[in-house]
Amino acid sequence: MPVADEFESANATYAASFTKGNLQLPPKRKVAILTCMDARIADPAKALGLSEGDAHVIRNAGGRASDALRSIIISQQLLGTREIVIIHHTNCGMLTFSDDQLRSQIRTQLGQDADHIAFLPFKDLRQSVLDDVAFLKKSELVLDVPVTGFVYEVESGRVVRV
Amino acid sequence: MPVADEFESANATYAASFTKGNLQLPPKRKVAILTCMDARIADPAKALGLSEGDAHVIRNAGGRASDALRSIIISQQLLGTREIVIIHHTNCGMLTFSDDQLRSQIRTQLGQDADHIAFLPFKDLRQSVLDDVAFLKKSELVLDVPVTGFVYEVESGRVVRV
Repeated sequence: MPVADEFESANATYAASFTKGNLQLPPKRKVAILTCMDARIADPAKALGLSEGDAHVIRNAGGRASDALRSIIISQQLLGTREIVIIHHTNCGMLTFSDDQLRSQIRTQLGQDADHIAFLPFKDLRQSVLDDVAFLKKSELVLDVPVTGFVYEVESGRVVRV
Repeated sequence: MPVADEFESANATYAASFTKGNLQLPPKRKVAILTCMDARIADPAKALGLSEGDAHVIRNAGGRASDALRSIIISQQLLGTREIVIIHHTNCGMLTFSDDQLRSQIRTQLGQDADHIAFLPFKDLRQSVLDDVAFLKKSELVLDVPVTGFVYEVESGRVVRV
């Protein structure tokens, strides 16, 4: 059974007791969270005390800022967020490869050229957070708002400010 | 108080009873979910019956596939996912503007040129799901795996297959 079918059936139970149908479009707490797609961060809502309607949640491989720029501009310009929180995490897949390695794997296994894609891996977790905070702070397309960086420890569930 | 401080304090409570420190890096259910950053989808885990460690969750403005390509390639090539679920939603902010409008707003309010950014708004919700499923199905950099599209109804909490 495809996982999509399982999602559909789990969702029927969720929707049966759904009570949050009247929330507004703009995030109530005016914050955009940028984090990794990692499966162990399954529930950022629970880990950060978020309720439905509170915050934008942007997720990509690594939680990289350059890849989130389009979403952050939309979040600020059209939906009024005025704070950004960046959360990378321990044991991230982005620490395990290089652009050269992944491009070469794609060439071998798919017979395709991916040299035009920057996959944005990193070698130093803490530095990756600092780099992404600096990227947003420097961008002329991002408002001058508080940008805070954290590392989430997948081992302990704790976020540690960088 | 910045929201970042509130997150830190909510997280201390979460971490105090954390029990999921031994999960593996590759998603257990081998699926990547692509959805919108919208604040009302605060808890895709609950809405789809996901547990920690189950699935990659990629989120951007609109849940657009072209903007998620880097993450999807990494998800498949390095972390073994073999199914993709795309979920757009009713009352999406992406239905409310055009590239021209947003670029012009950025020029007026920030004095900056954003003509090089495709913000990926859409006029037809159902079509945007079909387009994104087709985009991934056609991409030579994406494996030939099941790709299922849904619309999430923010009014009812229900996902409806497209």
